[in-house]
Amino acid sequence: MDTLDFRFELNAQEGKARTGVFHTPHGEIPTPIFAPVGTQATVKSLTKKQLKELDTRLILGNTYHLYLRPGDDLIAELGGLHKFMNWDGPILTDSGGFQVFSLSDMRQVDEDGVTFKSHIDGSTHRFTPERSVAIQENLGSDIMMAFDECAEPYDREYNIQAMTRTHHWAERCLEAKTRDDQALFGIVQGGVFPDLRAASAEFIASLDFPGIAIGGLSVGETKDEMHAMLKVVNEILPEDKPRYLMGVGTPQDLVECVRLGIDIFDCVLPTRLARHNAAMTDTGRMNMMNARFARDERPISDTCTCYTCQNHTRAYIRHLISAREMLSGTLLSIHNIHTLLELARKIRQSIQEGNFAQFANHYLENLNRE
Amino acid sequence: MDTLDFRFELNAQEGKARTGVFHTPHGEIPTPIFAPVGTQATVKSLTKKQLKELDTRLILGNTYHLYLRPGDDLIAELGGLHKFMNWDGPILTDSGGFQVFSLSDMRQVDEDGVTFKSHIDGSTHRFTPERSVAIQENLGSDIMMAFDECAEPYDREYNIQAMTRTHHWAERCLEAKTRDDQALFGIVQGGVFPDLRAASAEFIASLDFPGIAIGGLSVGETKDEMHAMLKVVNEILPEDKPRYLMGVGTPQDLVECVRLGIDIFDCVLPTRLARHNAAMTDTGRMNMMNARFARDERPISDTCTCYTCQNHTRAYIRHLISAREMLSGTLLSIHNIHTLLELARKIRQSIQEGNFAQFANHYLENLNRE
Repeated sequence: MDTLDFRFELNAQEGKARTGVFHTPHGEIPTPIFAPVGTQATVKSLTKKQLKELDTRLILGNTYHLYLRPGDDLIAELGGLHKFMNWDGPILTDSGGFQVFSLSDMRQVDEDGVTFKSHIDGSTHRFTPERSVAIQENLGSDIMMAFDECAEPYDREYNIQAMTRTHHWAERCLEAKTRDDQALFGIVQGGVFPDLRAASAEFIASLDFPGIAIGGLSVGETKDEMHAMLKVVNEILPEDKPRYLMGVGTPQDLVECVRLGIDIFDCVLPTRLARHNAAMTDTGRMNMMNARFARDERPISDTCTCYTCQNHTRAYIRHLISAREMLSGTLLSIHNIHTLLELARKIRQSIQEGNFAQFANHYLENLNRE
Repeated sequence: MDTLDFRFELNAQEGKARTGVFHTPHGEIPTPIFAPVGTQATVKSLTKKQLKELDTRLILGNTYHLYLRPGDDLIAELGGLHKFMNWDGPILTDSGGFQVFSLSDMRQVDEDGVTFKSHIDGSTHRFTPERSVAIQENLGSDIMMAFDECAEPYDREYNIQAMTRTHHWAERCLEAKTRDDQALFGIVQGGVFPDLRAASAEFIASLDFPGIAIGGLSVGETKDEMHAMLKVVNEILPEDKPRYLMGVGTPQDLVECVRLGIDIFDCVLPTRLARHNAAMTDTGRMNMMNARFARDERPISDTCTCYTCQNHTRAYIRHLISAREMLSGTLLSIHNIHTLLELARKIRQSIQEGNFAQFANHYLENLNRE
């Protein structure tokens, strides 16, 4: 099933860093890539046209949110998530697992699944591996994720239990899958424990997934711990499948984790920071509400080619924030997403040209760490 | 001063309705025209690019708001309002009078001007005719308005006082004006009293204004009263100057008031309704939150050519509203502004082709009145 549609072509490699193309029914995804998050069938504040102008190649939808509102049945009835939100490019959906564990008001995990209460109205719901796959099949994403449990990273005993459950659930998700126009990715767990991460990577790699995600990172552990886990896992994962680091990251993360062999990233950071008045740049984060920008006629970044920087000054953006105008969120979202997509483009190009190591060192030296 | 730059060419006339072009230093304004309101140097939720794609030909900025935040001095220092917000088309600024009387926390009117408290921080400020002109000269709008007092429409004695003051202030504004790249419009007041309106129209028409506004309407009086006042005033106003009806309106208002001789309109309605989930259409208003739209795959309007209707279903827009996603405000603002701009285009065309009366009758018959 699905071998041809979801071909992953590797074009160039430098150390662990690689560049390639993942083929999906809704288009090619060049890797390494960053995917903006469209939690509720919208990348917050941006039109489809603006996302296309940013050359967005992959967006993420959240299964937990879409299941609760407007409902996956309704979306299926209206032709699936692509048609519902009128996005004709590739879409990745998560499994709902992470949100059940982080957002819902109450949850009870058992070997079969999770019972939880909606954060919207307190109503009771149940996700199982089979249910998660069925919901994602209703949504019709190009890439769907196996249902997993994301545990606290430092509790070893609990991570053993959660990882074991995640492995059983991965097999059940593969079994439950019925559509051949969707790729199902497995998820590696194991907290901050190298031996658990290695065991999880080996188990997930042994199953028939066209791509593999690494979950349970960027959830409270240190950067060093995250990098150590990626080293362990990426040594084991097959070279010929795309590797997706879930919920990451910052510009620094993109550079450092591509260097460790990651191909796909997603994160709410660019749009969330935009709503909190922060601009992401290649030299660090800027709080655009700062009074020192009141008369600053420069763009956010002199070298940025995004719509916002080509059209507006720091003074204007600071005024919009100060006057509580929602256009500030739109303009900063455009800028922040552009920063990450442009960084991904430069990363791909430098790997292609064989100077990624130099690019990465230079980039990280110029960056004020966050 | 300013005779060439602010030429008003009348191209066609049908009854009192007319179509023409008003020339400004930042471009031609075809009339009749609707101007979206950009209160705080932004038409709420829309980028400049989106406004250009809507073929917006004139926008309005609010002097009261911009004076308070970010300050007209700051805007002047940064090159004026066009440069500050990066809008290269014509801009009209009001005088600040209406907001002082409707928004500020306290106000004391005397013959010389108005003292008021900011709605933002309670600080005390004073506007006089000279100050209003100086602020608008700092903003650098193409069309600025004389400082006026907008009175309660039904209090005859007070309207006599306010109108008399408005007339004195109009003369002082003309006197105070120093720039020749801005047109100053006078404002007719007089509440719902035909004799006062006639006296005001005669006085304002006697002064050297390149265009004339009609103020103090759509502030609580009935549609019939508004129309009666427009008939009185437009009989008196010279044919060769553009007539601007301030703060109006709805699609119905545009058709009915063009029929009475109005050339320019502005209103917050399209963007304000958008933020309250309402779509304006040629057949009436729709509450897009309505549960009956949950599975409705049609666009807001089958015949609408706007970005929103070309790309999104009622079901999707209803979902965005229900999920409190700000994209709903953007998509509805695009649709609502398009509805009014497209209506203005059709009005201009029908006057040009000599079938405006037929167009107006047909339009009003199909409209569910608001």
